[in-house]
Amino acid sequence: MGKLAWKGGTLLAPVPAVMVSCGDMDNSNIITAAWCGIMCSDPPKTYVSIRPERHSYGIIKEKMELAINLTTEKLVNACDYCGIKSGRDADKFEKTHLTKEKGQVVSCPIIKESPLTLECKVIQIIPMGSHDVFICDIVATDVDDSLVDAKGKLHLDKAGLITYSHGTYYRLGKPLGNIGFSHAKKTKKKPGGKITNKPRRG
Amino acid sequence: MGKLAWKGGTLLAPVPAVMVSCGDMDNSNIITAAWCGIMCSDPPKTYVSIRPERHSYGIIKEKMELAINLTTEKLVNACDYCGIKSGRDADKFEKTHLTKEKGQVVSCPIIKESPLTLECKVIQIIPMGSHDVFICDIVATDVDDSLVDAKGKLHLDKAGLITYSHGTYYRLGKPLGNIGFSHAKKTKKKPGGKITNKPRRG
Repeated sequence: MGKLAWKGGTLLAPVPAVMVSCGDMDNSNIITAAWCGIMCSDPPKTYVSIRPERHSYGIIKEKMELAINLTTEKLVNACDYCGIKSGRDADKFEKTHLTKEKGQVVSCPIIKESPLTLECKVIQIIPMGSHDVFICDIVATDVDDSLVDAKGKLHLDKAGLITYSHGTYYRLGKPLGNIGFSHAKKTKKKPGGKITNKPRRG
Repeated sequence: MGKLAWKGGTLLAPVPAVMVSCGDMDNSNIITAAWCGIMCSDPPKTYVSIRPERHSYGIIKEKMELAINLTTEKLVNACDYCGIKSGRDADKFEKTHLTKEKGQVVSCPIIKESPLTLECKVIQIIPMGSHDVFICDIVATDVDDSLVDAKGKLHLDKAGLITYSHGTYYRLGKPLGNIGFSHAKKTKKKPGGKITNKPRRG
Protein backbone atom coordinates (compact mmCIF):
# COMPACT_ATOMS: atom_id res chain seq x y z
CA MET A 1 0.00 0.00 0.00
CA GLY A 2 1.33 3.40 -0.99
CA LYS A 3 0.37 6.74 -2.39
CA LEU A 4 -0.02 7.67 -6.02
CA ALA A 5 1.23 11.15 -6.89
CA TRP A 6 -1.52 12.85 -8.88
CA LYS A 7 -1.74 16.44 -9.99
CA GLY A 8 -4.02 18.87 -8.18
CA GLY A 9 -7.73 18.27 -8.61
CA THR A 10 -11.12 18.89 -7.01
CA LEU A 11 -11.29 15.57 -5.18
CA LEU A 12 -12.67 16.91 -1.90
CA ALA A 13 -15.40 14.48 -0.80
CA PRO A 14 -18.07 14.20 0.35
CA VAL A 15 -19.49 17.66 -0.28
CA PRO A 16 -23.03 19.10 -0.07
CA ALA A 17 -25.40 18.86 -3.04
CA VAL A 18 -27.73 21.79 -2.59
CA MET A 19 -30.42 23.32 -4.76
CA VAL A 20 -29.82 27.04 -5.11
CA SER A 21 -32.97 29.01 -5.97
CA CYS A 22 -32.77 32.51 -7.41
CA GLY A 23 -34.76 35.21 -9.20
CA ASP A 24 -38.15 36.31 -7.91
CA MET A 25 -41.56 34.69 -7.40
CA ASP A 26 -42.44 35.19 -11.11
CA ASN A 27 -39.13 34.51 -12.82
CA SER A 28 -36.98 32.04 -10.97
CA ASN A 29 -34.50 29.29 -11.49
CA ILE A 30 -32.87 26.46 -9.53
CA ILE A 31 -29.26 25.38 -9.95
CA THR A 32 -27.67 22.46 -8.14
CA ALA A 33 -24.31 23.21 -6.56
CA ALA A 34 -21.70 21.04 -4.86
CA TRP A 35 -19.11 23.82 -4.62
CA CYS A 36 -20.70 25.36 -1.53
CA GLY A 37 -19.67 25.69 2.11
CA ILE A 38 -19.74 27.69 5.31
CA MET A 39 -17.03 30.37 5.51
CA CYS A 40 -17.67 31.96 8.90
CA SER A 41 -19.71 31.05 11.99
CA ASP A 42 -20.21 34.54 13.39
CA PRO A 43 -21.50 36.42 11.47
CA PRO A 44 -22.79 33.44 9.43
CA LYS A 45 -21.35 33.51 5.92
CA THR A 46 -21.40 30.98 3.10
CA TYR A 47 -20.54 30.76 -0.60
CA VAL A 48 -21.68 29.10 -3.79
CA SER A 49 -19.40 28.82 -6.84
CA ILE A 50 -21.12 29.12 -10.22
CA ARG A 51 -19.84 29.03 -13.80
CA PRO A 52 -20.45 32.38 -15.62
CA GLU A 53 -22.10 30.53 -18.53
CA ARG A 54 -24.86 29.11 -16.33
CA HIS A 55 -28.32 30.67 -16.58
CA SER A 56 -28.52 31.33 -12.83
CA TYR A 57 -25.23 33.25 -12.88
CA GLY A 58 -26.74 36.35 -14.49
CA ILE A 59 -29.88 36.19 -12.34
CA ILE A 60 -27.88 36.05 -9.10
CA LYS A 61 -25.47 38.76 -10.23
CA GLU A 62 -28.41 41.05 -10.97
CA LYS A 63 -30.43 40.35 -7.82
CA MET A 64 -27.48 39.72 -5.47
CA GLU A 65 -29.65 37.21 -3.58
CA LEU A 66 -29.99 33.43 -3.53
CA ALA A 67 -31.41 30.67 -1.34
CA ILE A 68 -29.55 27.46 -0.48
CA ASN A 69 -32.05 24.62 -0.12
CA LEU A 70 -30.82 21.41 1.54
CA THR A 71 -31.62 18.22 -0.35
CA THR A 72 -33.02 14.89 0.74
CA GLU A 73 -33.49 11.41 -0.63
CA LYS A 74 -36.98 12.41 -1.79
CA LEU A 75 -35.48 15.37 -3.67
CA VAL A 76 -32.53 13.55 -5.27
CA ASN A 77 -34.17 13.29 -8.69
CA ALA A 78 -35.01 17.00 -8.75
CA CYS A 79 -31.56 17.84 -7.39
CA ASP A 80 -29.86 15.94 -10.19
CA TYR A 81 -32.21 17.39 -12.82
CA CYS A 82 -31.49 20.97 -11.71
CA GLY A 83 -27.76 20.27 -12.04
CA ILE A 84 -27.80 19.04 -15.63
CA LYS A 85 -30.63 21.02 -17.25
CA SER A 86 -30.46 24.72 -18.04
CA GLY A 87 -33.11 27.18 -16.89
CA ARG A 88 -32.87 28.65 -20.40
CA ASP A 89 -34.65 25.55 -21.72
CA ALA A 90 -37.07 24.68 -18.93
CA ASP A 91 -38.98 26.12 -16.00
CA LYS A 92 -37.33 23.97 -13.36
CA PHE A 93 -39.95 24.57 -10.64
CA GLU A 94 -42.60 23.35 -13.07
CA LYS A 95 -40.59 20.39 -14.37
CA THR A 96 -39.61 19.16 -10.91
CA HIS A 97 -43.06 19.84 -9.39
CA LEU A 98 -41.38 21.75 -6.60
CA THR A 99 -43.28 24.53 -4.83
CA LYS A 100 -42.14 28.14 -4.65
CA GLU A 101 -42.54 29.69 -1.25
CA LYS A 102 -41.80 33.21 -0.07
CA GLY A 103 -38.74 33.65 2.06
CA GLN A 104 -38.46 35.93 5.09
CA VAL A 105 -35.89 38.36 3.75
CA VAL A 106 -34.85 37.61 0.19
CA SER A 107 -37.15 38.13 -2.78
CA CYS A 108 -36.16 34.87 -4.49
CA PRO A 109 -38.39 31.87 -3.82
CA ILE A 110 -37.37 29.15 -1.41
CA ILE A 111 -38.23 25.50 -2.12
CA LYS A 112 -41.11 24.37 0.11
CA GLU A 113 -40.12 20.68 -0.14
CA SER A 114 -36.61 21.36 1.19
CA PRO A 115 -36.30 20.73 4.94
CA LEU A 116 -34.08 23.73 5.53
CA THR A 117 -33.21 26.81 3.49
CA LEU A 118 -30.50 29.40 4.02
CA GLU A 119 -31.57 32.80 2.68
CA CYS A 120 -28.50 34.64 1.42
CA LYS A 121 -27.45 38.11 0.29
CA VAL A 122 -24.40 38.19 -1.95
CA ILE A 123 -21.72 40.50 -0.57
CA GLN A 124 -18.79 39.76 -2.89
CA ILE A 125 -18.12 37.95 -6.16
CA ILE A 126 -14.61 36.59 -6.75
CA PRO A 127 -13.76 35.29 -10.26
CA MET A 128 -11.43 32.30 -10.02
CA GLY A 129 -11.34 30.70 -13.46
CA SER A 130 -14.07 28.22 -14.45
CA HIS A 131 -16.15 29.44 -11.49
CA ASP A 132 -16.96 32.70 -9.74
CA VAL A 133 -17.36 32.53 -5.97
CA PHE A 134 -20.49 34.22 -4.61
CA ILE A 135 -19.75 35.06 -0.98
CA CYS A 136 -22.95 35.61 1.01
CA ASP A 137 -24.31 36.72 4.34
CA ILE A 138 -26.82 34.15 5.62
CA VAL A 139 -29.64 36.52 6.54
CA ALA A 140 -32.40 34.05 7.51
CA THR A 141 -33.11 30.33 7.87
CA ASP A 142 -36.38 28.55 7.05
CA VAL A 143 -36.86 25.26 8.85
CA ASP A 144 -39.53 22.65 8.34
CA ASP A 145 -41.52 22.61 11.57
CA SER A 146 -41.77 18.81 11.53
CA LEU A 147 -38.03 18.70 12.34
CA VAL A 148 -38.29 20.89 15.43
CA ASP A 149 -39.50 19.51 18.76
CA ALA A 150 -41.61 21.25 21.40
CA LYS A 151 -38.47 22.63 23.05
CA GLY A 152 -37.29 24.21 19.80
CA LYS A 153 -34.51 21.67 19.19
CA LEU A 154 -33.74 20.89 15.55
CA HIS A 155 -33.63 17.20 14.58
CA LEU A 156 -31.92 17.45 11.22
CA ASP A 157 -31.10 13.74 11.39
CA LYS A 158 -34.77 13.10 10.57
CA ALA A 159 -34.63 15.05 7.30
CA GLY A 160 -33.14 12.25 5.18
CA LEU A 161 -30.33 14.48 3.90
CA ILE A 162 -28.09 13.42 1.04
CA THR A 163 -24.46 14.07 0.25
CA TYR A 164 -22.38 13.97 -2.93
CA SER A 165 -19.11 12.13 -3.33
CA HIS A 166 -17.08 11.72 -6.52
CA GLY A 167 -20.04 11.71 -8.89
CA THR A 168 -22.56 9.81 -6.75
CA TYR A 169 -25.37 10.94 -4.44
CA TYR A 170 -25.57 9.06 -1.12
CA ARG A 171 -28.00 8.86 1.73
CA LEU A 172 -26.37 9.53 5.09
CA GLY A 173 -25.58 6.21 6.74
CA LYS A 174 -24.81 5.04 10.23
CA PRO A 175 -24.10 7.80 12.78
CA LEU A 176 -20.58 7.35 14.17
CA GLY A 177 -20.61 9.81 17.06
CA ASN A 178 -21.35 13.38 18.01
CA ILE A 179 -18.74 16.10 18.01
CA GLY A 180 -16.55 15.69 21.07
CA PHE A 181 -17.23 11.96 21.46
CA SER A 182 -13.53 11.10 21.44
CA HIS A 183 -13.05 13.34 24.48
CA ALA A 184 -16.01 11.83 26.29
CA LYS A 185 -14.30 8.44 26.24
CA LYS A 186 -12.34 8.28 29.47
CA THR A 187 -9.32 6.01 29.57
CA LYS A 188 -9.55 4.23 32.87
CA LYS A 189 -7.09 1.87 34.46
CA LYS A 190 -8.83 -1.05 36.10
CA PRO A 191 -7.26 -2.60 39.20
CA GLY A 192 -6.22 -5.53 37.00
CA GLY A 193 -4.23 -3.17 34.83
CA LYS A 194 -6.39 -3.50 31.73
CA ILE A 195 -7.17 -0.21 30.03
CA THR A 196 -10.77 0.27 28.99
CA ASN A 197 -12.62 3.07 27.36
CA LYS A 198 -15.77 3.96 29.22
CA PRO A 199 -18.17 6.64 28.08
CA ARG A 200 -18.39 9.53 30.49
CA ARG A 201 -21.77 10.29 32.01
CA GLY A 202 -23.60 13.43 30.97
CA MET B 1 -46.52 21.24 8.02
CA GLY B 2 -44.98 24.66 7.57
CA LYS B 3 -41.80 26.62 7.88
CA LEU B 4 -40.35 28.16 10.98
CA ALA B 5 -38.71 31.55 10.45
CA TRP B 6 -35.30 31.40 12.12
CA LYS B 7 -32.52 33.94 11.95
CA GLY B 8 -29.47 33.31 9.78
CA GLY B 9 -27.19 30.49 10.91
CA THR B 10 -24.59 28.01 9.69
CA LEU B 11 -27.02 25.14 9.14
CA LEU B 12 -25.59 23.94 5.82
CA ALA B 13 -25.48 20.13 6.01
CA PRO B 14 -23.94 17.71 5.41
CA VAL B 15 -20.44 19.15 5.04
CA PRO B 16 -16.99 17.57 4.86
CA ALA B 17 -15.05 16.77 8.05
CA VAL B 18 -11.43 16.89 6.96
CA MET B 19 -8.16 16.74 8.86
CA VAL B 20 -5.96 19.65 7.83
CA SER B 21 -2.26 19.03 8.42
CA CYS B 22 0.23 21.89 8.54
CA GLY B 23 3.76 22.84 9.59
CA ASP B 24 6.75 20.77 8.50
CA MET B 25 7.97 17.21 9.06
CA ASP B 26 9.46 18.18 12.46
CA ASN B 27 6.87 20.61 13.80
CA SER B 28 3.40 19.88 12.62
CA ASN B 29 -0.20 20.01 13.67
CA ILE B 30 -3.57 18.67 12.58
CA ILE B 31 -6.82 20.62 12.82
CA THR B 32 -10.23 19.24 11.90
CA ALA B 33 -12.32 21.50 9.69
CA ALA B 34 -15.91 21.34 8.47
CA TRP B 35 -15.85 24.82 6.94
CA CYS B 36 -14.11 23.66 3.78
CA GLY B 37 -15.14 23.36 0.13
CA ILE B 38 -14.14 23.51 -3.52
CA MET B 39 -14.25 27.02 -4.99
CA CYS B 40 -13.17 26.45 -8.58
CA SER B 41 -12.81 23.42 -10.87
CA ASP B 42 -10.23 24.85 -13.28
CA PRO B 43 -7.75 25.79 -11.94
CA PRO B 44 -8.60 23.69 -8.85
CA LYS B 45 -9.08 25.91 -5.82
CA THR B 46 -10.37 25.21 -2.33
CA TYR B 47 -10.61 26.91 1.07
CA VAL B 48 -10.50 26.15 4.75
CA SER B 49 -11.89 28.58 7.35
CA ILE B 50 -9.98 28.72 10.64
CA ARG B 51 -10.44 30.77 13.82
CA PRO B 52 -7.45 33.07 14.46
CA GLU B 53 -7.12 31.77 18.02
CA ARG B 54 -6.47 28.20 16.86
CA HIS B 55 -2.90 26.89 17.06
CA SER B 56 -2.84 25.90 13.38
CA TYR B 57 -3.83 29.41 12.30
CA GLY B 58 -0.38 30.90 12.99
CA ILE B 59 1.41 27.91 11.47
CA ILE B 60 -0.55 28.09 8.21
CA LYS B 61 -0.24 31.88 8.01
CA GLU B 62 3.54 31.57 8.35
CA LYS B 63 4.04 28.66 5.93
CA MET B 64 1.17 29.49 3.54
CA GLU B 65 0.73 25.75 2.95
CA LEU B 66 -1.66 23.10 4.23
CA ALA B 67 -2.88 19.61 3.33
CA ILE B 68 -6.53 18.55 3.35
CA ASN B 69 -6.77 14.89 4.33
CA LEU B 70 -10.09 13.12 3.70
CA THR B 71 -11.46 11.17 6.64
CA THR B 72 -12.92 7.69 6.96
CA GLU B 73 -14.81 5.62 9.47
CA LYS B 74 -11.47 4.24 10.72
CA LEU B 75 -10.23 7.81 11.25
CA VAL B 76 -13.35 9.22 12.93
CA ASN B 77 -11.88 9.07 16.42
CA ALA B 78 -8.70 10.89 15.35
CA CYS B 79 -10.77 13.34 13.31
CA ASP B 80 -12.89 14.26 16.32
CA TYR B 81 -9.85 14.45 18.62
CA CYS B 82 -8.06 16.85 16.26
CA GLY B 83 -11.12 19.09 16.27
CA ILE B 84 -11.45 19.49 20.02
CA LYS B 85 -7.83 19.35 21.27
CA SER B 86 -5.29 22.09 20.73
CA GLY B 87 -1.88 21.47 19.21
CA ARG B 88 -0.54 23.74 21.96
CA ASP B 89 -1.23 20.99 24.49
CA ALA B 90 -0.50 17.81 22.55
CA ASP B 91 1.42 16.43 19.58
CA LYS B 92 -1.60 15.30 17.61
CA PHE B 93 0.29 12.95 15.26
CA GLU B 94 1.67 11.16 18.32
CA LYS B 95 -1.62 11.11 20.23
CA THR B 96 -3.65 9.83 17.29
CA HIS B 97 -0.96 7.35 16.14
CA LEU B 98 -1.22 8.80 12.66
CA THR B 99 1.80 8.65 10.36
CA LYS B 100 3.46 11.70 8.79
CA GLU B 101 4.33 11.25 5.16
CA LYS B 102 6.07 13.62 2.77
CA GLY B 103 3.90 15.31 0.19
CA GLN B 104 4.84 15.91 -3.42
CA VAL B 105 4.89 19.69 -3.38
CA VAL B 106 4.14 21.15 0.05
CA SER B 107 6.56 20.88 2.95
CA CYS B 108 3.86 20.07 5.51
CA PRO B 109 3.26 16.38 6.24
CA ILE B 110 0.33 14.54 4.76
CA ILE B 111 -1.50 11.85 6.77
CA LYS B 112 -0.56 8.40 5.49
CA GLU B 113 -3.76 6.79 6.82
CA SER B 114 -5.97 9.19 4.85
CA PRO B 115 -7.16 7.74 1.54
CA LEU B 116 -6.74 11.01 -0.34
CA THR B 117 -4.94 14.25 0.39
CA LEU B 118 -5.16 17.62 -1.36
CA GLU B 119 -1.86 19.49 -1.11
CA CYS B 120 -2.59 23.22 -1.00
CA LYS B 121 -0.79 26.53 -1.27
CA VAL B 122 -2.57 29.46 0.36
CA ILE B 123 -3.05 32.33 -2.10
CA GLN B 124 -5.31 34.65 -0.11
CA ILE B 125 -6.57 35.08 3.46
CA ILE B 126 -9.92 36.82 3.96
CA PRO B 127 -10.92 37.77 7.55
CA MET B 128 -14.68 37.37 8.00
CA GLY B 129 -15.35 37.57 11.74
CA SER B 130 -14.99 34.45 13.89
CA HIS B 131 -13.09 32.79 11.02
CA ASP B 132 -10.52 33.72 8.40
CA VAL B 133 -10.89 32.06 5.01
CA PHE B 134 -7.70 30.52 3.62
CA ILE B 135 -8.16 30.33 -0.15
CA CYS B 136 -5.80 27.80 -1.74
CA ASP B 137 -4.53 26.45 -5.01
CA ILE B 138 -4.72 22.64 -4.98
CA VAL B 139 -1.22 21.90 -6.23
CA ALA B 140 -1.11 18.10 -5.91
CA THR B 141 -3.21 15.11 -4.88
CA ASP B 142 -2.02 11.99 -3.06
CA VAL B 143 -4.21 8.94 -3.55
CA ASP B 144 -4.04 5.59 -1.80
CA ASP B 145 -3.11 3.10 -4.53
CA SER B 146 -5.56 0.53 -3.15
CA LEU B 147 -8.39 2.77 -4.40
CA VAL B 148 -7.14 2.95 -7.99
CA ASP B 149 -7.72 0.11 -10.45
CA ALA B 150 -5.40 -1.12 -13.21
CA LYS B 151 -6.91 1.36 -15.64
CA GLY B 152 -6.19 4.29 -13.33
CA LYS B 153 -9.82 4.78 -12.28
CA LEU B 154 -10.40 6.04 -8.75
CA HIS B 155 -12.89 4.08 -6.62
CA LEU B 156 -13.43 6.57 -3.82
CA ASP B 157 -16.60 4.70 -2.83
CA LYS B 158 -14.33 2.02 -1.32
CA ALA B 159 -12.61 4.47 1.04
CA GLY B 160 -15.31 4.44 3.74
CA LEU B 161 -15.56 8.24 3.77
CA ILE B 162 -17.48 10.06 6.48
CA THR B 163 -19.49 13.26 6.47
CA TYR B 164 -20.58 15.71 9.16
CA SER B 165 -24.11 16.92 9.69
CA HIS B 166 -25.39 19.14 12.50
CA GLY B 167 -22.96 17.89 15.13
CA THR B 168 -22.78 14.22 14.15
CA TYR B 169 -20.35 12.22 12.02
CA TYR B 170 -21.98 9.76 9.59
CA ARG B 171 -20.80 6.99 7.36
CA LEU B 172 -21.98 7.41 3.77
CA GLY B 173 -25.07 5.28 3.25
CA LYS B 174 -26.92 3.87 0.29
CA PRO B 175 -25.86 5.27 -3.12
CA LEU B 176 -28.87 6.95 -4.76
CA GLY B 177 -27.58 7.53 -8.27
CA ASN B 178 -24.71 8.96 -10.27
CA ILE B 179 -24.68 12.52 -11.57
CA GLY B 180 -26.97 12.73 -14.59
CA PHE B 181 -29.11 9.73 -13.59
CA SER B 182 -32.32 11.75 -13.81
CA HIS B 183 -31.54 12.51 -17.46
CA ALA B 184 -30.73 8.88 -18.23
CA LYS B 185 -34.31 7.96 -17.35
CA LYS B 186 -36.13 8.10 -20.66
CA THR B 187 -39.80 8.94 -20.59
CA LYS B 188 -41.45 6.51 -22.97
CA LYS B 189 -45.07 6.31 -23.98
CA LYS B 190 -46.32 2.75 -24.04
CA PRO B 191 -48.91 1.83 -26.66
CA GLY B 192 -51.48 1.78 -23.86
CA GLY B 193 -50.75 5.43 -23.18
CA LYS B 194 -49.14 4.92 -19.78
CA ILE B 195 -45.95 6.88 -19.22
CA THR B 196 -43.08 4.87 -17.76
CA ASN B 197 -39.54 5.73 -16.84
CA LYS B 198 -37.09 3.27 -18.30
CA PRO B 199 -33.35 3.46 -17.64
CA ARG B 200 -31.38 4.16 -20.79
CA ARG B 201 -28.85 1.58 -21.89
CA GLY B 202 -25.15 2.37 -21.65
